[in-house]
Amino acid sequence: MSIYLHDIPLAQAQARFAEALQTAGLAGVIATEEIPLNENALGRVLAEPVWAKLSSPHYHASAMDGFAVRATETEGASLSTPVTLIYGIQTTYVDTGDPLPLWANAVIPIEEAEPQTATGTVDPAARRPYAIRIRAATPPWKHVRPMGEDMVATELVLPAGHVLRPVDLGACAGSGHHELRVARKPRVAIIPTGTELKPIGEPVQAGDIIEYNSVVLAAQVRAWGGEPTRYPITVDDFDLIQAQVVDAARDHDLVLLLAGSSAGSEDFSARVVEAVGTLLVHGVAVRPGHPVILGMVERSPQSSFTLQSSTPIIGVPGYPVSAALTGEIFVEPLLARWLGRMPAEPLTLTAQMTRKVTSPGGDDDYMRVVVGQVGARTLAAPISRGAGVISSLVRADGIVVLPSGSQGVAAGEAVEVRLYRTPRDIARTILAMGSHDMTLDLLAQFLAGKGRRLASANVGSQGGLVALKRGEAHLAGSHLLDPETGEYNVAYIQRYLPGVPVVGVTLVGRAQGLMVLRGNPCRVQSLADLAGKEVRFVNRQRGAGTRVLLDYHMTQLGIVPLQVQGYDQEEYTHLAVAAAVASGRADCGLGIAAAAQALGLDFLPLFQERYDLIIPEDHYNSLLLAPLLDLLADGAFRAAVATLPGYDVSDMGQIAFRLEIV
Amino acid sequence: MSIYLHDIPLAQAQARFAEALQTAGLAGVIATEEIPLNENALGRVLAEPVWAKLSSPHYHASAMDGFAVRATETEGASLSTPVTLIYGIQTTYVDTGDPLPLWANAVIPIEEAEPQTATGTVDPAARRPYAIRIRAATPPWKHVRPMGEDMVATELVLPAGHVLRPVDLGACAGSGHHELRVARKPRVAIIPTGTELKPIGEPVQAGDIIEYNSVVLAAQVRAWGGEPTRYPITVDDFDLIQAQVVDAARDHDLVLLLAGSSAGSEDFSARVVEAVGTLLVHGVAVRPGHPVILGMVERSPQSSFTLQSSTPIIGVPGYPVSAALTGEIFVEPLLARWLGRMPAEPLTLTAQMTRKVTSPGGDDDYMRVVVGQVGARTLAAPISRGAGVISSLVRADGIVVLPSGSQGVAAGEAVEVRLYRTPRDIARTILAMGSHDMTLDLLAQFLAGKGRRLASANVGSQGGLVALKRGEAHLAGSHLLDPETGEYNVAYIQRYLPGVPVVGVTLVGRAQGLMVLRGNPCRVQSLADLAGKEVRFVNRQRGAGTRVLLDYHMTQLGIVPLQVQGYDQEEYTHLAVAAAVASGRADCGLGIAAAAQALGLDFLPLFQERYDLIIPEDHYNSLLLAPLLDLLADGAFRAAVATLPGYDVSDMGQIAFRLEIV
Repeated sequence: MSIYLHDIPLAQAQARFAEALQTAGLAGVIATEEIPLNENALGRVLAEPVWAKLSSPHYHASAMDGFAVRATETEGASLSTPVTLIYGIQTTYVDTGDPLPLWANAVIPIEEAEPQTATGTVDPAARRPYAIRIRAATPPWKHVRPMGEDMVATELVLPAGHVLRPVDLGACAGSGHHELRVARKPRVAIIPTGTELKPIGEPVQAGDIIEYNSVVLAAQVRAWGGEPTRYPITVDDFDLIQAQVVDAARDHDLVLLLAGSSAGSEDFSARVVEAVGTLLVHGVAVRPGHPVILGMVERSPQSSFTLQSSTPIIGVPGYPVSAALTGEIFVEPLLARWLGRMPAEPLTLTAQMTRKVTSPGGDDDYMRVVVGQVGARTLAAPISRGAGVISSLVRADGIVVLPSGSQGVAAGEAVEVRLYRTPRDIARTILAMGSHDMTLDLLAQFLAGKGRRLASANVGSQGGLVALKRGEAHLAGSHLLDPETGEYNVAYIQRYLPGVPVVGVTLVGRAQGLMVLRGNPCRVQSLADLAGKEVRFVNRQRGAGTRVLLDYHMTQLGIVPLQVQGYDQEEYTHLAVAAAVASGRADCGLGIAAAAQALGLDFLPLFQERYDLIIPEDHYNSLLLAPLLDLLADGAFRAAVATLPGYDVSDMGQIAFRLEIV
Repeated sequence: MSIYLHDIPLAQAQARFAEALQTAGLAGVIATEEIPLNENALGRVLAEPVWAKLSSPHYHASAMDGFAVRATETEGASLSTPVTLIYGIQTTYVDTGDPLPLWANAVIPIEEAEPQTATGTVDPAARRPYAIRIRAATPPWKHVRPMGEDMVATELVLPAGHVLRPVDLGACAGSGHHELRVARKPRVAIIPTGTELKPIGEPVQAGDIIEYNSVVLAAQVRAWGGEPTRYPITVDDFDLIQAQVVDAARDHDLVLLLAGSSAGSEDFSARVVEAVGTLLVHGVAVRPGHPVILGMVERSPQSSFTLQSSTPIIGVPGYPVSAALTGEIFVEPLLARWLGRMPAEPLTLTAQMTRKVTSPGGDDDYMRVVVGQVGARTLAAPISRGAGVISSLVRADGIVVLPSGSQGVAAGEAVEVRLYRTPRDIARTILAMGSHDMTLDLLAQFLAGKGRRLASANVGSQGGLVALKRGEAHLAGSHLLDPETGEYNVAYIQRYLPGVPVVGVTLVGRAQGLMVLRGNPCRVQSLADLAGKEVRFVNRQRGAGTRVLLDYHMTQLGIVPLQVQGYDQEEYTHLAVAAAVASGRADCGLGIAAAAQALGLDFLPLFQERYDLIIPEDHYNSLLLAPLLDLLADGAFRAAVATLPGYDVSDMGQIAFRLEIV
């Protein structure tokens, strides 16, 4: 059955794969091994139940340092009528953990006994006195840990399928085991393919792609209990790829063939799988990640690795987000099955979507989201959906799956988020929306050391104010100049946040200017030079403070947008503007000095502006934000910001204004 | 300052330790190292923030297989007015991922272009046609992944202190890194001491203790990101212990000295610490675990391991529960500090205590609990508080900390549980209370393969019915004979569970009889032989079905409790009774054949009885219990039970009765 990139529903793909695994005898634990019981057993999965071989304690043990006695012989003892027991006959000394003599059934703690010499004087330190005097009767089995108190031989200590934790190792050892039968770690071969790939650490040129999917998948395999083997990069050559697959299938339990899984001219994966085995699935209706291949490779007869005659193979799409999600969707459950443990179950949390998201109806759509608690609401904000944006998985707090057939979700709708972080991580996350500034990255770095996480979304200054109004952020970075008054932010807050009491705290003063290639080959000096249409400009998006600044000064100069080539080219951050200039896509853009320096551009300062953090009063006084406000007075943080070019920290932490508009 | 086992509050002990660490320069990350960026970096902690060195993509990349064009040259194209672009001049072919030519700013996907030969015919497969015809204009940057779409050079990729996950490795590699600076794994020496200790796997005699605390602590250290070194067992000898400590301190960051931390005659730890450094704390008011030692060892001058001149040492109490909790309370936060990451934060959950617990007011009391959801309530039931019962930590779902000063908690009171399992594990837990039967262990083992966990508490048949009445269990195992009717369970349910509709499902029929040492040296044959007072009997607790059975037959025979030696010796399980006989503590006890066989005892069958699972209707029909009820009809499970001696599975799964008493 050969299906060329015909997306089938996920459940159908999984069922087809499961059936083939069943037929191949690979539906359950594939192999077990006996390992010594030591700290290396941590995280391994029991292949058999552990039944206690030995009781624990395996004898009646004294639970105190003291004197072993027969309880009946202590009867009648009281403060006024002590009872005397002769050492060596009626009592003997035992340390904690010592076995009780067979005739004894209780222990008198040393501090409750009065050891006596032969002449009757008391020697509290004596361990072999002539006799002891006691002033209270003891019930039988007092201060004794009876045999089996902890575990009784034959009892179930741990069931098969259990993932071993530190204390489990103690219980297994205490119940008489020195080896454990566990599932062998599944061996997973990871074969990156692609002529354009370069190994990590080698210099790259345009067109080269740094090959890191194999590292991500190898780390996933390891985290999930498997043993990865990373193969070297194979160029796009049918025969070479086939040879690697055949080699890997011989001594691995699973082959992951990276990239080439689509249907392009140099996508050999599907054809290789057909050539050496059975192509079960080519294309699964999940997004991102749909060009997934599932198949079985026939092992060459000389393989002595296992009894099974075939090795499953998964063709993993080349885009990094697709590759990582293919690991989660297909590889993790397979390893769980082979290890005999429960599949990973992410923690989930219910959140409200901040905005409407549409979804192609035919696919299961794995949407990355950032999650935050703002006041009483838990919010999920969608982030980049690009399959090539690995940083979106790094930033994501979790995944919302929009099942095929759904058209998407409405703003405010409740969704279930599969978390990548713990609920506590979410609770200590500060959501910052608004204008981008490089000091926010420094702030994030410093906050990480103070038990807070800064998740910032760059939506421009006005977007940040709107987010505050909607209760979707804890603070907004803003540098909105009011052309009427020359004041920053206040007029916009009056417009966007009526009725919301806010505090405006200055973060930095910063220079705005033109970024140009080193040496300024396009010879711009001022905004006026943009009007000639010979210079290719790159703009910020509508609503960004930098855009407001540009429009303000253009109006002053009488320049209209149509005169500026590239005025409609919008980027969302200073760095993106700088990157556009550095790459030659544009000749210049308006932005901050730090962004220019970061990409090796020249910077022509034009204006000085103030960048404030706008914080609703409720959040301003919250425990969540306290460390952030403290940092604004922190010498180390101020010093770190001051090293960035174009920044003025003299007003950092000043309350610029406090507003409550009614 | 030397404090001999004078318990001080936990916060004070931590503060004293923290101060000494500060003085020694050990308050933060102690050392860093550069490691290659590959899958072995998984779980390591970043010692520096990762800033992007390279943008990703580091060039403008085609996002499709297709033809690169200038967007302006496509203007005006429509279905009826196609535009033709000359190959090599106005367009060129690019694969996905290829760099865009400098002059181009958009890509037309191959399926949207009409490649033409020089004569004007269309060849859809042509990659180097004479020209292409297009029937729609494209906006600039369409189907292009612009440079920096994922990450822009100089951007913060990850903050210091971040624990590396698989996708993080991808982002670091994609942003131009091939090495990462991480915190060096703290090296932790673990020195078990005690003349009574035997290594795992060696034969043991009475008085020998299997040394596994070092394995538990080593596994903890590894799980928390450290590198453990397990030293061999050192006997109780001051000089030998001192020599090991000095040796370990030289090339480790932390020394854990196991056992000997109390104030007994062979407890050398505190004196050793005083001899080689500073004893900071001897005794912390936490329970279990109070004889903890905190100190600093002076490094010998020839040490070249680090710049610091001292090594912290923790004296860990010998009882295994105390040892494991000392790891959690003192070692984990220290490793977190040295690694620069956040300390571990267990998930928490609010539950209602099933019963009142009193606590010694002066200590922070770490109470182990089992947690379950019964109907709408989440319940926490305390389990063994013994410091020697490692199985209690294995069984525990979490810890409730009763802070010093608290007198305990009332039944029904809400408590915060620090979870050892995930909330999902809790949700799939079946709470079984009642009479103990060995088949419950088998049931637990089989249920583990069906996505359910069986947590059973042995409280006797009547205790189980009371638990059902209180809504504290999903089911109760019961074998309560009604002396009036000869029927099982019904009369007791009428008494204990009025108004609760229940189903009685038979689990097994089983033989009850006398367990005696092999060869029956005490020559008992029947209950009548117990009345002579020469035979030492061991009994089950009041309320246990076996106790009811005994009392019934004793009454029939006219025997009164006073005639039976050991009638007041109560054990809570069949195995505990068997252990009492096997150890010589008693001559015989009444119980089931399987328990006798398990401990190598002879079994004299006296009666046959029925053991039912009593299940409230609500739970009987729940998804939670469905796999359990299915198992009662499962051939493999029935066969496994049938191999146990004395069991009859012919009625397994039969509904014995359905009751609703009003």
